Amino acid sequence: MPSRPAGESQRPGVRRGGAQYERIHGDLARAAAAALARRGYGDLSPEAVASEAGVSPRTAFRHYPTKLDLALAGIDALPDYSGWLEEVVAGESMADRLRRGLLVGAGHDELLAPVMATCLSHRDEQPELLLQLRRRVLKPRERAIGAFLEEGKVRGEIREAVGSTAMSALDVGLFMMGGLGQFPLGRGRRRAQRLFEQIWPVICAPGHEDD
Amino acid sequence: MPSRPAGESQRPGVRRGGAQYERIHGDLARAAAAALARRGYGDLSPEAVASEAGVSPRTAFRHYPTKLDLALAGIDALPDYSGWLEEVVAGESMADRLRRGLLVGAGHDELLAPVMATCLSHRDEQPELLLQLRRRVLKPRERAIGAFLEEGKVRGEIREAVGSTAMSALDVGLFMMGGLGQFPLGRGRRRAQRLFEQIWPVICAPGHEDD
Repeated sequence: MPSRPAGESQRPGVRRGGAQYERIHGDLARAAAAALARRGYGDLSPEAVASEAGVSPRTAFRHYPTKLDLALAGIDALPDYSGWLEEVVAGESMADRLRRGLLVGAGHDELLAPVMATCLSHRDEQPELLLQLRRRVLKPRERAIGAFLEEGKVRGEIREAVGSTAMSALDVGLFMMGGLGQFPLGRGRRRAQRLFEQIWPVICAPGHEDD
Repeated sequence: MPSRPAGESQRPGVRRGGAQYERIHGDLARAAAAALARRGYGDLSPEAVASEAGVSPRTAFRHYPTKLDLALAGIDALPDYSGWLEEVVAGESMADRLRRGLLVGAGHDELLAPVMATCLSHRDEQPELLLQLRRRVLKPRERAIGAFLEEGKVRGEIREAVGSTAMSALDVGLFMMGGLGQFPLGRGRRRAQRLFEQIWPVICAPGHEDD
């Protein structure tokens, strides 16, 4: 294995920053997220992640030189609510926006609970995992939730009493209960609907229960 | 190590079911819960748990013959809300009861998030951990929460829209966010107060905000 840092190698045909490089970089990160969720950080195998992403271990190493780099990239690939929960569509109610957001997330949010779990389990020997999770996933989600709540309150569709910490806890808790098998989240459209049914009645202002 | 199952041994002086046996049995379970929270199931060491509980590895083995038995006992020792959230004190408001319950739990509930995490991380190779967590911790908590909400609704102090799944998610989510360092739970009385400040405004009926 080369001892130079990743990114400094300049093999012909795979220009760093080029389209192919970016595609492989992203594929590896998504494969790392799935592997982290399935096996946890302890059993994360860069070789298996490379194979899952359809590249050689050597190529994977050039993108992410250590197991930790790969894990951090995997965490970074988790859904963070930015864009889709903050995005405003004209004429949409807050309930519609929440439904739309949950539906976008329903395709890939099943990674969240197991990745949170492995970050927490390895908090002592690998604290970077938890820091990355907070910085790149939990805080952006809480910010997006905060902006969503704020607009909903201005519009009178969301109760003043609901804060971004409480709604984040509801969000994190539902995913954890789903991951723990304590609440049957299901998949896809069904999953988005189940999440909506739990979240909306708790946060909506009087008169918006049936939005 | 003896090959007979634990509990069948009859060493003089440690009668199974006797006070000393029960005390050691409980000490080992509590030490196992703390070890599970600190190190996770993968690194759970029966020898270290025995040492923590102040008994020999041989004695620990007689109580819990396998690492899994010890882990299951540890999970069983987690706070399950039974008794203290369900208990009714005359003249107490629902807000008071919640405050009292959270204060009782504030001494030992910091184990919940990391134990949930390790049960989830080991769901494939050791599914008994997750089953035990659901059966002995999550379901009893949800039942106690359900009874609490039901009485609060009858008394008009809790909003009809709040269900036991949503409040359980809020509960699980706050502990997870605390464990992940995303919400500063703190300890003891401060911890109980922080949890109360997040939970009560979300669940209380109009007019009970300042209970």
